[in-house]
This record gives sequence, structure tokens and C-alpha cells, in this order.
Amino acid sequence: MIVELISVGTELLLGNTINTNANYLARMCAKLGISNFYQITVGDNEDRLFNVIKTALSRADILILTGGLGPTEDDLTKEVTARVIGRRLVEDLDVKKSISEYFRKSNRKDIPENNWKQTYVIEGSTVIENHNGTAPGLLITTDDKKLIILLPGPPRELIPMFENSVVPYLRKLMPGTFYSETIKICGFGESQAVTIIEDLIEGQSNPTIAPYAKPGEVHFRVTASARDEEEGIDLVRPLVNELRKRFKDNIFTTKEEENLEDVVVSLLEKYNLKLTTAESCTGGLLSGRIINVPGASSVFDEGFITYSNDAKEKYLGVDRETLDKYGAVSKETAIMMAEGAAMSTGKDAGLAITGIAGPDGGTLKKPVGLVYIACYLRGKVQVEKFNFNGDRQTIRERAVIHALNMLRLSIINQYEK
Amino acid sequence: MIVELISVGTELLLGNTINTNANYLARMCAKLGISNFYQITVGDNEDRLFNVIKTALSRADILILTGGLGPTEDDLTKEVTARVIGRRLVEDLDVKKSISEYFRKSNRKDIPENNWKQTYVIEGSTVIENHNGTAPGLLITTDDKKLIILLPGPPRELIPMFENSVVPYLRKLMPGTFYSETIKICGFGESQAVTIIEDLIEGQSNPTIAPYAKPGEVHFRVTASARDEEEGIDLVRPLVNELRKRFKDNIFTTKEEENLEDVVVSLLEKYNLKLTTAESCTGGLLSGRIINVPGASSVFDEGFITYSNDAKEKYLGVDRETLDKYGAVSKETAIMMAEGAAMSTGKDAGLAITGIAGPDGGTLKKPVGLVYIACYLRGKVQVEKFNFNGDRQTIRERAVIHALNMLRLSIINQYEK
Repeated sequence: MIVELISVGTELLLGNTINTNANYLARMCAKLGISNFYQITVGDNEDRLFNVIKTALSRADILILTGGLGPTEDDLTKEVTARVIGRRLVEDLDVKKSISEYFRKSNRKDIPENNWKQTYVIEGSTVIENHNGTAPGLLITTDDKKLIILLPGPPRELIPMFENSVVPYLRKLMPGTFYSETIKICGFGESQAVTIIEDLIEGQSNPTIAPYAKPGEVHFRVTASARDEEEGIDLVRPLVNELRKRFKDNIFTTKEEENLEDVVVSLLEKYNLKLTTAESCTGGLLSGRIINVPGASSVFDEGFITYSNDAKEKYLGVDRETLDKYGAVSKETAIMMAEGAAMSTGKDAGLAITGIAGPDGGTLKKPVGLVYIACYLRGKVQVEKFNFNGDRQTIRERAVIHALNMLRLSIINQYEK
Repeated sequence: MIVELISVGTELLLGNTINTNANYLARMCAKLGISNFYQITVGDNEDRLFNVIKTALSRADILILTGGLGPTEDDLTKEVTARVIGRRLVEDLDVKKSISEYFRKSNRKDIPENNWKQTYVIEGSTVIENHNGTAPGLLITTDDKKLIILLPGPPRELIPMFENSVVPYLRKLMPGTFYSETIKICGFGESQAVTIIEDLIEGQSNPTIAPYAKPGEVHFRVTASARDEEEGIDLVRPLVNELRKRFKDNIFTTKEEENLEDVVVSLLEKYNLKLTTAESCTGGLLSGRIINVPGASSVFDEGFITYSNDAKEKYLGVDRETLDKYGAVSKETAIMMAEGAAMSTGKDAGLAITGIAGPDGGTLKKPVGLVYIACYLRGKVQVEKFNFNGDRQTIRERAVIHALNMLRLSIINQYEK
């Protein structure tokens, strides 16, 4: 089974947007065992889009087109696809209803004239519902049994649609199965992590290990091609166990859909612990990550963003002497912030970040990227010093990951060992 | 002048790497006024790469190929390109010298056998030196005057080579220039915004307007093709002024590199105002956005994440009666949060968000997506009710954008009107 990915959008050709959709879809197709030989990006141009679809139909079994389903006149993907395969566009009453509903919910009474264009679908297609926007997706089987899938461009619309509707459909088409397990670790760089398992990666055939790096995290996906899930599990499990042995506590989850913040919130819930955060350079990104977990309210009541020294003193009880003597970015201040966050709010845990995210404010002794993270948990406190590389955004993201990981390890060490 | 971008690498087809090169090169070419109609990604496969290069030569003036110049047997870009245009590969003594030099500098005495492959170049090509790796770039003019540029895949090798050697070369080839201005608005959905300027978009030729949507924002890029920048400005300006007239205060910037949070921090700085944030469902994302601006410390000392009712009472002085009577997600609570944030910290402005981000916690009267945003500024307070669509993440992002915009408009109304 061969898939061709076609990204439609002039903004991609102008370099205004990075094509993360092609990456996401390629990864998902690889996981499903579908081969991808070509990825094409083309603008909202009728002739060129026509030719791209025609060529793709001549060499692939499945076409996934993203973008160009919007309400404006530029958006041509549906119209051109219909023309290539010789089908008509017909109004779909269900789609019409759900678009009206969408606008009603947003309290906008007048549906823009343009959006009616989105109520038309290609004759004989299956509609994929879009819960995060107005453009429905379409799934079309052509007369010569090729599959064409049209999806909207914005990732927050595309991803849930692909995962909920397209994946189950594609899985049914695939002979045999691919079984994967994922191991997510933090505390290692990608190349460092890969070095540790170099012998396992070398000469691999079935199962395979694919590393994937995110800021502060490395994910290893172990995939086996098998007759059925049971055989897949048998093939994958020994390799997963070997990875567990090598990375130990640095593995924070083996669940595909679980993030580091999910794990931290679960651990807090499990031991009935409440957390307060205190952030300086990350300015709310840490608490934002925690509150990203639905139900975080059971472990998190409040957090402080203390950007100024005064705020550190007033809300966290960091004493002026410490600030004057060691500075706001110091081991000593980080510890007082973490302790102060927990104490002043009467909570079990306090997690604090203070650092220099740049681009200004660095000195020879305290360069940009210097970050102290402290974690207080029920009477015990620890602090770590980091020198992160990267720009302001990257430094802050890494600090958040390491803070979450520090709390995770503190809970494990104090409650599970 | 038309460029086609060809990214070579199986890792792209497997989704292991995001194609940032295509984005970078597209952006640079757009800036140079070179049109890009197709971007192709293809694996390290001889036949498919051959066909991709051949097709590209039939429809573009310039081909930029990235990747596949490495030392391994997989790497075929140079070999296949030579074959398509009927040229030989010849050893280049300068390249050989600089590769030896590279390994000597890295303190690795033994040059891997493979790397000698990299000393071969396409006959008649110009070598682009690589100061960050071993693969040289090549610049080839074909017999029918097409330009082919081969560059290595790693961005830290590609970008300096492109900027130092390729850009000056391309600039000489280009007659005239492209001039763009961007207008960024918030408070409108894309289709709603496009409807307002439909008459301007219809029948446009030079300049053109291209809309681009981000959550809560719409950007319009107005581009003219002109002899020089001066003529470009003359062509673009009347259309930009018309957009200003139609969108008025909804335009938050006309600077390409400026974000909404930059604008808000600048306005606060300009009028010497200090801000305190109070967040419930967004849990620090609002303050995180503000602190994203380097130098935000001059306008922002502290922020509160008050997830529980107790925290709203304790830190913001929201009274228990209001919470009991109207609930945490209400107009009344939002106002008290905004006022309380400013008052309790002695600041000029307080910006508060309280809402239901889901997926749980919604009721018929207060559904998921219901968000109240209140803005207090020097004695005046206003509050707005929103019903956002989308998942938890989208609802929170939209809330942050609207909060920033509300503060921006409050400052403008109070200080600039």
C-alpha cells in the first residue's frame, strides 16, 4: 500500500508556515505500515493542483490532501479533486446543519456567505466530521479503487480527524498488522540516548526502534510487523524490556498518549499530594503545562509567577538577604522559592524555576541559559543547576520539562522506593 | 524566475524529521522575488529521484536540492543529478584538501573511507564551501541554462552556505523585486475578515492580498512585484491604507516580526503601566505569553494562577458570596479577579480569565468553551463573555489572544483617544 501526501497552500510555498502536517501524516502512515514515496506541496492553483492529483493517482494507492478546504475563493482542493475524478459537488444537509450549529455555538448569528461553500461535498464521498472547525473532511473511493482523503490544513482540526476517523479506516485496509510500543524518556539528549542502545539499533529488522526527539525528551517507538496483535506483542516485548533495563527511572511512560505532565499529575493524585508552583523566567509555562491535564484541579490550587524580587519576597517569603547576597538566579533563591510556595499555601510540594532565558541579562558568571530548579516535597528539598542551550523559548521549554521530571523522580524516590 | 525545492531523504518520508529546510528556502526565495510552485520530498531512491529532477527541470528555472550529499552509499543526490543532465563526476583537489582539513581539526586522524566519495563533484560545477561539515554544495548551470543548486541536509550546514554563497548569486540573477507589507488583525475569524475585503481580493493582480489564519488572528500579506523597493512601496501603500480603514483598531500591528504580546508590552511600557494577571482555566499561559517578550520585566512583576475558589479569595479578594452566588465562571467573578489582581499588588492593570476549558466540567447553562475575560485599567473595568469552540488547548489559546487584545484596546481607548 503506497500513500502520497499532498499539502495544498500558498502559505507553504511562501515559507510562512512550516509543514508539520506532512511530518505528522508520514509518521502515522509509517506506523500503519503504509509506504510513502513522495510528498508534494503545491499552491492554491487550479492547473497545478489538477496535475499533482493526476500524477499522484498514477503512482499511489492512497492520496492524502491537506489544506485548501477553507471558505474562501482561494480554497480549491475539493473542487479540483472532483474535476480530476469526474465527480460532481453536491450539497450535504448534515454538513450544513453542523456548520450552522458551529456558528450558533460561537454566538455569531450571521453565517458568513462564504461558509455555505463548505456545505458541498464530492458525490459518493464519506464525510469526516470536524469538531474544531467548519471544514469537513472527505473520504472518497475512486472508480478504479484508489482512496482519496481530504483533510483541513490546521493541525488542531486535522489531527483529531485523522486519529478518530482515518486511522481506523486505514487499519482495516492493511493486511496483517503493525504493533508498536513507545517508551518516553527524559534527562537525556537524543544522540546520548541513541548511543546507549546503538547495539540494538544496528542490524535491526523486525522489530525496529525509531527514535524521536522533542525538547528535553526522547521517544523510542518499537514496531513489529506481525500477523496479529498477539504476535506483535511477543515480538516487541523483549526489546521493550531491554530498553527498560537500560533507561530505568528515566522512562517516564510507556503509554503513547501520556505526557510528562499527565504522569506527574497522576503521581500527585496517587499519593494525595498537592502542588504549588513558583516561576520566574518560565512565567507560567510550568503551571500551564500542569493545568493542561484535565482534572488537574484535584492536585493544584494555585501558582505564583514572581518575576520581580519584590514578588519573590512577598508571596514566597524569599528573604531579601538571600536575594542580595546570591541573586535571584541562584541555588539559594530557588530553594527558598520552592519551600516558600509550599509553605505559604500549606501544600505538600513546591516546584520552583528561576533562570536567565535571554536574549539579554546574561553575564560571564551567570550566562543566558543558566537555570536553577528546586523541588520541595514533604520536608525534603533538592535543587539542580542547568545550563541550557538555545533561544529564549527553547530554554524555557527545557526548564519546564526538567522541573516536571524532578518532581516525578522526587515522588518516586520518596514514595515508591 | 521559478524555483522548485526538492528535499531528499527517507527520514522525511518516515516522518522522523520535520522539513524545516523547505520552509527556510521558500521564505528566502519569496524574499528574493523568486516564485515557488512545487516542493517535492523524495527518498534516497535512484529511479524516483531521477524522475523528480527531470520533471522539475521541465517546469522551473532553478532547482534547489537538499540532502543526500552525505558520505554513505544511500546518498545519491550528486550521482543522480549528474546522470539526469549527462555530466561526469570528477575528483576535486580543493574539496579533498578541505575534507582532510576538517577531520584534522576535529582531532580525528583517520578519514573514514566513505568520505572520499565526497571529494567528487559534477563536471563544470562551482563548489560552495561547507564550514560546518564535510559535504560541499554545488552550483551547476545546465546546457539549457537552468540552474541546479545542491546543498547538504543539516540546517546548520545548509543555512550559512545558502546565506553566504547562494543568496548573492541569486540576487544578481533577479530583475526587479517583490515588496510586501503585512497587516495582522484579531477579533475576527478568517472567513469573516475575508468577507470584509472580498471586493479587494476579487480581480487583484498586482499587488495581491494573501490571508493567513492563526488561532484568534488573521494576517494579510500585501505583495507587489516592482522594479525596485520604492515602486513596491508606491504600489502596496494604497491597498494597505484601505485595509487600515476597514479594520481600524482590530489591526494590532503592521510589523512582520511583531506579535500581539509584543504590542501589549510596548503599550504598557509607553504609558508606564504595570500589569498583574489572574488566571484560572488558562493556568499561566497568559503570563507565559507576556513573559515571552524579552524585557517584559519592566511592566510585569507578578501573576496569579488561582485554580481553586480558595485561591481566588485569598490572593485576589474575590468574595465568597460572589463565588457562591454566581460561580467561579461568571462575569462577576471575572471582574473581581481583574480588580483584585491590580489592587492587591498595587498595579495599574489587572487582566483576568476564568472559564471552562473542558473536556469535563461543562453544564447546559455553562457549557465547555464558556470563558469570561475581564480587564481592569486605572479605575475602569470591562468584562466580555465568550463561547469558544475547539478542544481544551484551543479554547485556552483563544482565551489568551482575546485577553491580550482586550488589554490592548483598553489602553488605546483610555490613552490614545
